[in-house]
Amino acid sequence: MTRRELLRMIGVTAGSAVMYQAMSSLGFAAESNFKKPIRLQGAPRGASVLVLGAGIAGMVAAYELRAAGYKVQLLEYNARAGGRNWSIHGGDSYTELGGFTQRCQFDAGLYINPGPWRLPYHHQGILHYCTLLGVPLEPFVQVNNNAYVHSSKAFGGKPQRFRHVHADYNGHVAELLAKVTQSHKLDGWVTKEDQEKLLMSLRTTGALDKNYAYVRSRTSSERRGYDIDPGGSLDPLAVPSEPIALGDLLDSDLWAMINAGDDYDMQTTLFQPVGGMGQIGKAFARELGTLIRYNAKVIDIHQDASGVTVTYEDTTKPDSRFSARADWCVNTIPLSVLSQIPMNVGTPMADAIAAVPYAAAIKVGLQFKRRFWEEDEQIYGGITYTDLPITNIGYPSTGFFSRGKGVLLGAYIWGMNATEFTAISPAERVKTAVAYGSQIHPQYAKEFDNGVAMAWHRSPFTLGCFGLWTDEARQKHYNNLCQIDGRIVLAGEHASYIPAWQEGAVTSSLNAISRLHQKAIATGAKA
Amino acid sequence: MTRRELLRMIGVTAGSAVMYQAMSSLGFAAESNFKKPIRLQGAPRGASVLVLGAGIAGMVAAYELRAAGYKVQLLEYNARAGGRNWSIHGGDSYTELGGFTQRCQFDAGLYINPGPWRLPYHHQGILHYCTLLGVPLEPFVQVNNNAYVHSSKAFGGKPQRFRHVHADYNGHVAELLAKVTQSHKLDGWVTKEDQEKLLMSLRTTGALDKNYAYVRSRTSSERRGYDIDPGGSLDPLAVPSEPIALGDLLDSDLWAMINAGDDYDMQTTLFQPVGGMGQIGKAFARELGTLIRYNAKVIDIHQDASGVTVTYEDTTKPDSRFSARADWCVNTIPLSVLSQIPMNVGTPMADAIAAVPYAAAIKVGLQFKRRFWEEDEQIYGGITYTDLPITNIGYPSTGFFSRGKGVLLGAYIWGMNATEFTAISPAERVKTAVAYGSQIHPQYAKEFDNGVAMAWHRSPFTLGCFGLWTDEARQKHYNNLCQIDGRIVLAGEHASYIPAWQEGAVTSSLNAISRLHQKAIATGAKA
Repeated sequence: MTRRELLRMIGVTAGSAVMYQAMSSLGFAAESNFKKPIRLQGAPRGASVLVLGAGIAGMVAAYELRAAGYKVQLLEYNARAGGRNWSIHGGDSYTELGGFTQRCQFDAGLYINPGPWRLPYHHQGILHYCTLLGVPLEPFVQVNNNAYVHSSKAFGGKPQRFRHVHADYNGHVAELLAKVTQSHKLDGWVTKEDQEKLLMSLRTTGALDKNYAYVRSRTSSERRGYDIDPGGSLDPLAVPSEPIALGDLLDSDLWAMINAGDDYDMQTTLFQPVGGMGQIGKAFARELGTLIRYNAKVIDIHQDASGVTVTYEDTTKPDSRFSARADWCVNTIPLSVLSQIPMNVGTPMADAIAAVPYAAAIKVGLQFKRRFWEEDEQIYGGITYTDLPITNIGYPSTGFFSRGKGVLLGAYIWGMNATEFTAISPAERVKTAVAYGSQIHPQYAKEFDNGVAMAWHRSPFTLGCFGLWTDEARQKHYNNLCQIDGRIVLAGEHASYIPAWQEGAVTSSLNAISRLHQKAIATGAKA
Repeated sequence: MTRRELLRMIGVTAGSAVMYQAMSSLGFAAESNFKKPIRLQGAPRGASVLVLGAGIAGMVAAYELRAAGYKVQLLEYNARAGGRNWSIHGGDSYTELGGFTQRCQFDAGLYINPGPWRLPYHHQGILHYCTLLGVPLEPFVQVNNNAYVHSSKAFGGKPQRFRHVHADYNGHVAELLAKVTQSHKLDGWVTKEDQEKLLMSLRTTGALDKNYAYVRSRTSSERRGYDIDPGGSLDPLAVPSEPIALGDLLDSDLWAMINAGDDYDMQTTLFQPVGGMGQIGKAFARELGTLIRYNAKVIDIHQDASGVTVTYEDTTKPDSRFSARADWCVNTIPLSVLSQIPMNVGTPMADAIAAVPYAAAIKVGLQFKRRFWEEDEQIYGGITYTDLPITNIGYPSTGFFSRGKGVLLGAYIWGMNATEFTAISPAERVKTAVAYGSQIHPQYAKEFDNGVAMAWHRSPFTLGCFGLWTDEARQKHYNNLCQIDGRIVLAGEHASYIPAWQEGAVTSSLNAISRLHQKAIATGAKA
């Protein structure tokens, strides 16, 4: 069974949350080894570089190569910089393949990040550029104990508070292990002394009572919350809450939704740029200024003994032809698009480019007339997980407690459901997300205002969300993808071990340009 | 054994973190049953209330009773409002009992909260007043997976990353229970079907490998982090990290430091006011304006058949005597201070006032020349826990990634250590906190700039940090403390089931004034 088949099977049998867990543990979500800022120096006199794609990888390359002394040009297909680094605000317009144009109706200051939305603390590469470019960051709330985990097949479809499922799972596991320990069933495996320590620890970590039981009590309610919370003066006395029974909890599969915040790339402290993820792309674009040529659709890449010539169309002048030439080329065009552009590289790189399919993903942003999730349900930021196709409801980590309208992430869909959502119109995607979401928040029906839906496979600029590597494909093709071919080197999240994350783009770019720089120096000054 | 003796013993034998866990589970940390804003209406014509103490409880009372139509006066001993709601900024000056005056030298914009520092999402009472008074809130980072847990007696005194201890404890526990399950030792306790689900879940929640083992692997490193993180392009390959052995982990007692973020009152999402906790007190003070008389030290409280007369000294005019009179009195003076003020109430309330000792607590704020915890150690917000007397090092949840100086919480001390820290001078407290903290952050030595140290037992205004109730004392005295005695009702965190939290002050105040209002109405208009 291939890994992809395995994933598909997990997805089918156990729902999206399990699928996501599996994706994480199979290495689709990963980290960075960025240690310190790069300082390339001493570009050969007059040397030039053509960078293709003004996403994060391309702009990092342009920024650093310019600093090293290269003459840099950057071609971007889209009318804006950033690539998948993007926030959609009210007034923005976007036309997808198939011709649907969406004009975002969000109120001023509200936005959705259709691409990346969080920055892990250890993604020091992208964080470095945020600091360097003056992009202010604020915490991104990943785990919210008062948000929900939801299965349409458990608890009559009633969403459960994260804190209930999290506390109860930990409590029951601790109780079971304590019981086993006390019945001497760990003898031989764990020393007597460690067993005593273990028991002590289980009482603490599991919120067990003095008899090592996880039961309705003040102790367990100090984790999961009370039926009636403690109050002041002569308020009614606190009433502890009843834990969910172990069997019900296991059957619900909701345990698969409680560990995202433990994952290395979703642990505290996470960040987001103030004003939307797109602020990073905008800051880079400001910094690079006229280096970037927008609306430049690359149609041919040709290298020869002394340089690289790129032919492109100015998309504002259909069928126009322009060309740009430089000594070297850093090519960050997504493989999904690049595989359709003629480029004279060797078979190893060409095969590698063709070997990586792109993951489908959908994000839907929904504006509501009020922040009912805060006002009615005391959910401030964080994510609700569900087995419905919408998978996630993400609550904004900014503007807390504000009055007026609010925008949440109404769906974050991948896998087979994403293919279905890609096939329907943006308006239908929004409508479907609202319909599913109402099963969790009945307020949707009354409070829904408007929405936007981004299907990455219909983006002309990326034709998918991110490069989906299998272990087999990596073994066969990854190094070939990353080697410099003549005067061309590729970079981007697809050329990294951190796929789908901006950090992959940064580290990929830095490694690629460092090697290209060495080669340029070795090759010497321009003839 | 009384609860206090138990706590002392736990503190002695197992360190502060265990002590803290015990404090939590014994109910010293708690929650709120505030459901919706209060709306008192219809004060008897001409009725007046004298509120004592412009802390949160007193200001809530003054705000709501004024809205209900009462004529309100508020007397405050201190020269500022807020009480324990307080942020110390550069330029602020504070004189404690014993005569030591500290002038805070922090840079502009930097502060420390010597009192409360976090607002749980379910403390809807205090959060309501933040919204009402326009106090902007930002997330407070409680758990930081990249901060440390530290025992001077384990791992050679080397601080361990939270994520290592957290992931490894969960992993080992899951592995043990999986092993036991596979060996049929749960047969009879757990159904066959549930055992299968349990195994599946343990693999997910514990990050176990396919053999249900918690070992060095990509899977476990996706929780605890890698030795070498994955990178981009041809960066070195990722190297998984080696988990800490179960025995070492249990012996270290560090497991006692990993659950604070699971507690109901320290779960995500927590908040802090932008600019310091003291912004709440300041907002109340702005709102109440001249209702508050500052520097008014109450020296006698006397009620008669028609009202309450309070005699006070204007502390700016030593030995001056003033008096204020109203129909009713809401008395929020801390019991530690109130017990020394003559007041003609019945024996039940008088006994209750005398029955509650006050907890000692110390907070030390340290300014450093740079935010080395972010720059060198990638710690953004959150708390390091240690068995050293400083107990906590709290990193600021604001100003992330900023250059220049930074202030952290260098110590948060309670119990016996607090008594020792109270006995020494502020300068010595700061020096000691720096010395202890250097064991965790060696950068302290070079980067330390200046500090302030607040010992609550030396505060003339509270003579302690918060009312320390035992279950026995509550049973005997709590209701007597909260009953209206003639024309006087008490309020504050000490008259709540949420001691030490501002929510206790809010809910206590709201309940007390609601009852007082009913009594005032029943008593009728002023004669």
